[in-house]
Amino acid sequence: MNASLPLTATFNAVPSEKALMPFVSVENMMRLVHRVGLEQMLREIAEVIEGNFLRWESFDKTARIPAHSADGVIELMPTADRDTYGFKYVNGHPKNMREGLQTVTAFGLLADMHTGYPVLLSEMTMLTALRTAAMSALAAKHLAPKGARVMAMIGNGAQSEFQAVAFKAICGIEEVRLWDIDPRATAKCARNLQGHGLTVVPCATAEEAILGAQVITTATADKRLATILTDNMVGAGVHLNAVGGDSPGKTELARDILLRSDIFVEFPPQTRIEGEIQQLSPDHPVTELWEVIAGRKPGRTDAAQITLFDSVGFAIEDFSALTYVLAKARETGLYDLLDMIADPDDPRDLFGMLMRAKP
Amino acid sequence: MNASLPLTATFNAVPSEKALMPFVSVENMMRLVHRVGLEQMLREIAEVIEGNFLRWESFDKTARIPAHSADGVIELMPTADRDTYGFKYVNGHPKNMREGLQTVTAFGLLADMHTGYPVLLSEMTMLTALRTAAMSALAAKHLAPKGARVMAMIGNGAQSEFQAVAFKAICGIEEVRLWDIDPRATAKCARNLQGHGLTVVPCATAEEAILGAQVITTATADKRLATILTDNMVGAGVHLNAVGGDSPGKTELARDILLRSDIFVEFPPQTRIEGEIQQLSPDHPVTELWEVIAGRKPGRTDAAQITLFDSVGFAIEDFSALTYVLAKARETGLYDLLDMIADPDDPRDLFGMLMRAKP
Repeated sequence: MNASLPLTATFNAVPSEKALMPFVSVENMMRLVHRVGLEQMLREIAEVIEGNFLRWESFDKTARIPAHSADGVIELMPTADRDTYGFKYVNGHPKNMREGLQTVTAFGLLADMHTGYPVLLSEMTMLTALRTAAMSALAAKHLAPKGARVMAMIGNGAQSEFQAVAFKAICGIEEVRLWDIDPRATAKCARNLQGHGLTVVPCATAEEAILGAQVITTATADKRLATILTDNMVGAGVHLNAVGGDSPGKTELARDILLRSDIFVEFPPQTRIEGEIQQLSPDHPVTELWEVIAGRKPGRTDAAQITLFDSVGFAIEDFSALTYVLAKARETGLYDLLDMIADPDDPRDLFGMLMRAKP
Repeated sequence: MNASLPLTATFNAVPSEKALMPFVSVENMMRLVHRVGLEQMLREIAEVIEGNFLRWESFDKTARIPAHSADGVIELMPTADRDTYGFKYVNGHPKNMREGLQTVTAFGLLADMHTGYPVLLSEMTMLTALRTAAMSALAAKHLAPKGARVMAMIGNGAQSEFQAVAFKAICGIEEVRLWDIDPRATAKCARNLQGHGLTVVPCATAEEAILGAQVITTATADKRLATILTDNMVGAGVHLNAVGGDSPGKTELARDILLRSDIFVEFPPQTRIEGEIQQLSPDHPVTELWEVIAGRKPGRTDAAQITLFDSVGFAIEDFSALTYVLAKARETGLYDLLDMIADPDDPRDLFGMLMRAKP
C-alpha cells in the first residue's frame, strides 16, 4: 500500500440530512464481506438476484451504454423498477494489468425514483466480483448436471477465486481444477483458495483442467476473439459458464462449441452484441435465464446436453447487489456520508445558499 | 440546516494512491466559487465550453439516457473525447419543490479513457446551475442583438439568479426584469440579486417583464406543455433564451413563436425529443450552435430577426464544467479523497486483498 497522497477528507460543513448520501468505500465493503461471511454474502446476493429475475418484467431494461477507445471500454449500466433507480459505472481495460492496474473497476449508485435523490454510492470493483460469481453459480444451480462436484477454472485472474467459492457455497462444487496461460496466476489462485474447503488442483494444460469436470468456467480477459476452449475439449453433459467473453470482439469459445450447446443468456439485446453468441447469426435461438428461473422455460433437460451460460453481466444483477449492500450498510453502519446534494432550505434558493456560504 | 445525521466519515484505511479519487463536495464547490469569484467562474466555464464547442467533432455524442417515472426523470449524460470520459447524473422532479426538495440535483464524474479509472467525482447541483447559465450567456453572446442591455427573466426559481449574473458577466446585461407565477419567487430573486451590480425590476405580469427587453429568458419548471410566452408577446429583434423546456412534454413557448424564430440548438437528436422544437415537425430547420461559434454558419444576421436558443443542456457542457473543476480543485486543494477503487498490489489479486483485510 502507498500512502503518499494526503487524506484531506474532512467534513467541517454541516449539510442537511437530505444532502448527505451514504457511501460504501472499498474498506467498508471488505469489512461488510467479513462481517457477513464471504460464502453467506455470495448466497444472499444470489438470492436477491434470483428474486429480481423472478420479477424481470418489472424492470426498465437497456443494453449498456459503452464508450470505446483503443485501450478498452467504459460503460454505464442503468436499470430501474417503479421505486428504485440504479446504475453501475464499469471499465474494461485488459492492458491495465501490465501497468499494475485493475482490468475492471466499478462503482454504482441507487436513487429514489420518486424524488431523483441518490440514496447510495458504493464501490463496485469488489462488489462486481461478488455479484458476477453469485450470478454464475445461480445460473449453474439451474443448468449444471445434478451432482456436479468438479469445476474447471480456465483463467485464474481476479474473478477466479470468487467463482470457485461461489460454486462451492451455492452449487456444492468440491474440487476446482485451475489453468491459466500464466502459471503465476494459477499459483496465486491456488494459494488464495487454501483454507476455503475446496480441493484445488493446479493443472499444466487446459485439457488437464477439464478432465472429469462437470462445470467449465472460462474467465479470461483478452480483448480479442480468442479460443480458450476448442470444440474437441468439450464433451457431453457439461455446463459451460463463459464469463470472459463480454464485449464486441472479445470471446473465448470456439464457434462449434456454441452450435452443440443450449445457450442461456441474461438480456438478449446486450448478449448478442457482447457475448459468445456474437459469433452466431442474430436469430440463433437462445433462452433467457429469467424464464428458466421463473419456471416458464426448461433449463437442462437431459444428462448429455451441453448447457452454456453466456454471461456478460446485466444491470439487474448490479441493481440487486446494490440494494443488498444498502440494506446491509444501514444494518451495520458500515458507510460514510457524503455531502453530495446541494439542498437549500428553500429549494428555489440555490443562489442564496451559495451566497450565504461566502467566507 | 439540519445536522441530525451523524457524520461518520472516517478514513482509517490507507489505500493506495490509485485507489483514491478526488471528490468535490457541495461545500468545496461553494468555496471554489467564492475563491475564483462568481462572475469570473461563469466567464471561465463559458470559455471552456466555447473551446470544446470549437472541437465539437472530436467528441462521442449521444442523446441522454432517461428513466421516466410518474414523478419525473433520472438521466445519464455521457460523452468522451480521445483522452477523457465524463458523465452527469441528473434528475428532474418538478413536484419535489412542494416537498422541500430540489427539482434538479446532479453529480458528475470524469475518468481516464486510457485506463478507465475515475479521476473526479463532483457535486453538480450547484455546478449545473453555473454551467447552464454560462451556456445561455455564451449562446446569447453569439445570437443576441448588439448592445442588448435589458433581460426579462420569466421564472424566478433556482436557475434565475445564475442566469442574471452570467448575462451581466458575459453579455453586458445591466437590467433584469423579473416575473414568476409565484410573487415569492420574484421577491427571493430580487433580494438575492442585490449587490450584484444589476438594476433589478420585479414585475407584476410577464407582459410587463418583457417591456424593453432585448433578451427574454424563460426558466420555469412545470412538467407540462405550458405556454409561458404567447405569440403576441414576442416582438421583432429579440433573443429568446428558452431554458425550461427540456424534456418530452415540457415546453414553455407558443408554437407560433417558434415558427417566427431562427432556432439554434445544442445537439439536434436530443433537442428534437426534449426541446421547444418537440412541438415542430422532425425536419424543421435548426442550426447547431457549435457551427455558429466555429464560424461555419451565421448566427444573427439582422436586427429584426428573432433568435431562439432552444437550450436543453448537453453532455459536452457538463464535461467542460467538470474538466474546469478538476483543474481548479487540483490548484486549490478544495477536494476530499474517496476510497473508491479497489486496487490490490497485484491487479489479479483482488481476492487476496479482500482476504488480507480480514479483521
